[in-house]
Amino acid sequence: MTPRPRTLVTGAAGFLGSHLCEALLSAGHEVVGYDNLSTGRLANIGAPLRAPLFRFVEADVLDSPRMVEALADCDLVFHLAAHADVRRNPEHPALVFEQNAHATLALLESMRKSGIRRIAFASTGSVYGENPIIPTPENVPFPIQTSIYAAAKLASEGLLSAYAEAFGFQVFIVRLVSLLGPRYSHGHVADFLAQLSLHPDHLEILGDGRQRKAYLDARDAAQALLLAAQRCRQRVNVLNAGSRCLTVERSARLIAARLGAEPRLRYKGGRRGWPGDVPDIRLDCRRLRKLGWKPRHSVISSLEQTVDYLLEEKNSRTAEITRAACESVNAG
Amino acid sequence: MTPRPRTLVTGAAGFLGSHLCEALLSAGHEVVGYDNLSTGRLANIGAPLRAPLFRFVEADVLDSPRMVEALADCDLVFHLAAHADVRRNPEHPALVFEQNAHATLALLESMRKSGIRRIAFASTGSVYGENPIIPTPENVPFPIQTSIYAAAKLASEGLLSAYAEAFGFQVFIVRLVSLLGPRYSHGHVADFLAQLSLHPDHLEILGDGRQRKAYLDARDAAQALLLAAQRCRQRVNVLNAGSRCLTVERSARLIAARLGAEPRLRYKGGRRGWPGDVPDIRLDCRRLRKLGWKPRHSVISSLEQTVDYLLEEKNSRTAEITRAACESVNAG
Repeated sequence: MTPRPRTLVTGAAGFLGSHLCEALLSAGHEVVGYDNLSTGRLANIGAPLRAPLFRFVEADVLDSPRMVEALADCDLVFHLAAHADVRRNPEHPALVFEQNAHATLALLESMRKSGIRRIAFASTGSVYGENPIIPTPENVPFPIQTSIYAAAKLASEGLLSAYAEAFGFQVFIVRLVSLLGPRYSHGHVADFLAQLSLHPDHLEILGDGRQRKAYLDARDAAQALLLAAQRCRQRVNVLNAGSRCLTVERSARLIAARLGAEPRLRYKGGRRGWPGDVPDIRLDCRRLRKLGWKPRHSVISSLEQTVDYLLEEKNSRTAEITRAACESVNAG
Repeated sequence: MTPRPRTLVTGAAGFLGSHLCEALLSAGHEVVGYDNLSTGRLANIGAPLRAPLFRFVEADVLDSPRMVEALADCDLVFHLAAHADVRRNPEHPALVFEQNAHATLALLESMRKSGIRRIAFASTGSVYGENPIIPTPENVPFPIQTSIYAAAKLASEGLLSAYAEAFGFQVFIVRLVSLLGPRYSHGHVADFLAQLSLHPDHLEILGDGRQRKAYLDARDAAQALLLAAQRCRQRVNVLNAGSRCLTVERSARLIAARLGAEPRLRYKGGRRGWPGDVPDIRLDCRRLRKLGWKPRHSVISSLEQTVDYLLEEKNSRTAEITRAACESVNAG
């Protein structure tokens, strides 16, 4: 009998991490969920927390002693912890670089000390910059970086590959597009929803609305990461995930429709929504499909589920606040 | 009259930095030489230190207040400070990453605070990894990193490009090969020399001796950096420098011949001299040549001058130690 794999997930309580923990538990892994809860939420991992094969560690990836302790007896690491709020990157470059590059190096060093050499990494399609080749395959000409977020993710990719060469690691790099689905945390869907709840008659859109963005359901992204770690045989493996896309305008219309709103759309800025915004991003995912990956969720159903999740979330938060307020009144 | 350009050079007292300071002074720049003297040496910048337009600041790039002070009234920065001992990288990955990537980010932030937006960067041809395309042009397919040094340099390149996009910087990235010439500090020439002074009859070589390495004289590299900053017009400019090469064996024979030695060569290890060693590195430099760059020093004459410099250096160091010993005897 093959021994049960023991796997550590960083960013386990995050949007993608929580779905990955569920997928790993379903695949029979013992899972150590590692998260500093800076943006992750225990509510995301309600089901794993009840599973006997799941253990949660609240700690930072940069806390090496805690990480080394958590890594004991693990065979494989999924590194998903990140500073993922791409649009607000220019406001704090040092923080973005620390959390997206320096943290990876700290993790690699902890793994090296622990003798663990297999790591899957959630990278980003943004490393292709504003690429003229669309859909973009993994081996496109050496691109120019256009965001601090992508530069930091690319730095992490480089470190992983260097550790493969220097220390015999096996690495699985999955370049993802924007994620959708339940437990969605931030991004354009949340922004549009927030606007429409204030003024259902109009919606302000960053950019000209014609930016074409690829999206992927977080559950399909989790499957991509799992499959990469299970089936890739090279020492350094790089795979794209996310090819289905929507224009920002269509996305806005769909979100509004889900709410029963019919807003006027107002565009702000030029072709790019913000500095580093890539107006057209679509990835060539043939390499991943050859491994047997097939996304199960359509972009539209993912988008609708994202809206439904955010609405439900908002209601339960409102309910929570109301309850807390009542309790405080009762207590007083 | 065009105002005199005021330029800051990090790593100014290093091998490449010292030649660049001289080139900048010759081109009429006012120069702020910035170096923490961790590996740089004041002896390298004897001539600049006597020039009225040169000012030396002994400080670390990570020391932001000192950097911001030094940057006052500068128009342009050449970022050369680095942890450049590639072969010993796996011994201290965190230090390499801090000095080659984190320091770049600190510098970019200091520049942003100071309103300075033009930066030339000494990158490396190692970012191409073990590339199948030789000579390697700048737009080769997206490579896999094979050393922590290269991954950190690539991280810096990415940050520079991201700052171009986010904050309107203009960046000049020059990917260099191994440097030769006077003030050479470390690498295979010094290693071979050290070995031959101990045992002139044999020489141990890392790898099979057939690795083909491109070399460039540090003075030609300084010209490449200067030219890039003077003539490139894009926001992000990437240029290779260094196409002339020697096999490691030929290099060993030439060094030995310069010393009048005829050692037996012993090879150690396989095709690669050390983890991350790239067995064949030659760059396609047409982009730089189109700007008018033409290396003035042949590889062989550069190599010979390197040997001569190291011998002279060794003699003067031996003389220094002898003098110090005599003085201590006299003092006692």
